[in-house]
Amino acid sequence: MKYPGSLINLIRELGKLPGIGPKSAQRLAFYLFNQPEEEIKSLAHALLDAQASLMQCSLCFNITDEPVCTICNDVSRESRIICVVEHASDLLAIERSGEFNGLYHVLTGSLSPMNGVGPDQLTIKPLLGRLEGIDEVILATATTVEGEATAMYLARLLSDLGVKTSRIAYGLPVGGDLEYADEVTLGRAIANRRVI
Amino acid sequence: MKYPGSLINLIRELGKLPGIGPKSAQRLAFYLFNQPEEEIKSLAHALLDAQASLMQCSLCFNITDEPVCTICNDVSRESRIICVVEHASDLLAIERSGEFNGLYHVLTGSLSPMNGVGPDQLTIKPLLGRLEGIDEVILATATTVEGEATAMYLARLLSDLGVKTSRIAYGLPVGGDLEYADEVTLGRAIANRRVI
Repeated sequence: MKYPGSLINLIRELGKLPGIGPKSAQRLAFYLFNQPEEEIKSLAHALLDAQASLMQCSLCFNITDEPVCTICNDVSRESRIICVVEHASDLLAIERSGEFNGLYHVLTGSLSPMNGVGPDQLTIKPLLGRLEGIDEVILATATTVEGEATAMYLARLLSDLGVKTSRIAYGLPVGGDLEYADEVTLGRAIANRRVI
Repeated sequence: MKYPGSLINLIRELGKLPGIGPKSAQRLAFYLFNQPEEEIKSLAHALLDAQASLMQCSLCFNITDEPVCTICNDVSRESRIICVVEHASDLLAIERSGEFNGLYHVLTGSLSPMNGVGPDQLTIKPLLGRLEGIDEVILATATTVEGEATAMYLARLLSDLGVKTSRIAYGLPVGGDLEYADEVTLGRAIANRRVI
């Protein structure tokens, strides 16, 4: 038996999502078909609405539905510190921690020459345009190879411009058991120890 | 920071899908936002197209984009045997096995009085209307409690009508190691042993 064309198409589209393989895509498609008509429509419209209304903040490149995001618009925030992250989801993770009250800058990725991502593919130029009156730039890119390289690149660039830069701390995660920590993390946690 | 409304809505809609929790839904939403505009549109349109064009076969309740599905329309198939399954996805699984060349009947579920699913919620009445000239009905519902109960119910109903019914075989899956089989399956495999 051949699948109907629109079912094949739906399975293919669902299978493009990260973490969803062909089997899961098929299961999702059949699940959706068994739902009331409104369910599948409301998912489709949520996708179209999000696509139509969401954009990048013109200052910090956070996801927003207004030209300037609520963080950049918030006058109560410390506007002399910028925290640089790779993705808007990283920004939200830091916001959830409640430890930072400055502004952000979303790079929209990390340097990865192998994948054709150089400084021009990231929002580095707009970042340099925001440095007027900034006291400190915190580099909160991921602790992956690409994230490290991006932080190093930015640190050099910013120190040449005389801007104070810092890097988020390495160490053991809170609640982490030493036994299960990898050697590099443990080594860094010891090297970066603090007097108490 | 508050998420934009359309992003919250998209995350909520994605989170309704089976196997996708709030964290995965958020990850999918951010992933989609990072894709080219056409990607998110084509997923939305695939959903709407599927919703608009797919329907249940008027004879067997398989998923189809025509009033009668390609299996029911196929004159080369053995039309005197009906294989009863719970879901259209089960039908496709049997089709992939290549072991069956008869017709199907999709119940669209299994009897589950606890969840308010009785015989009237399934396509049992249309099945009874298809029995004219049928030699055998194979009950291929799942080997779960609900699937078993449904098979038992149908077996009694069909034998009262003088129709030959059979149940798919229980036993060890092909490639299965005895050590890892559960006791009930192993017990059934021994009870249903065949002379070779």
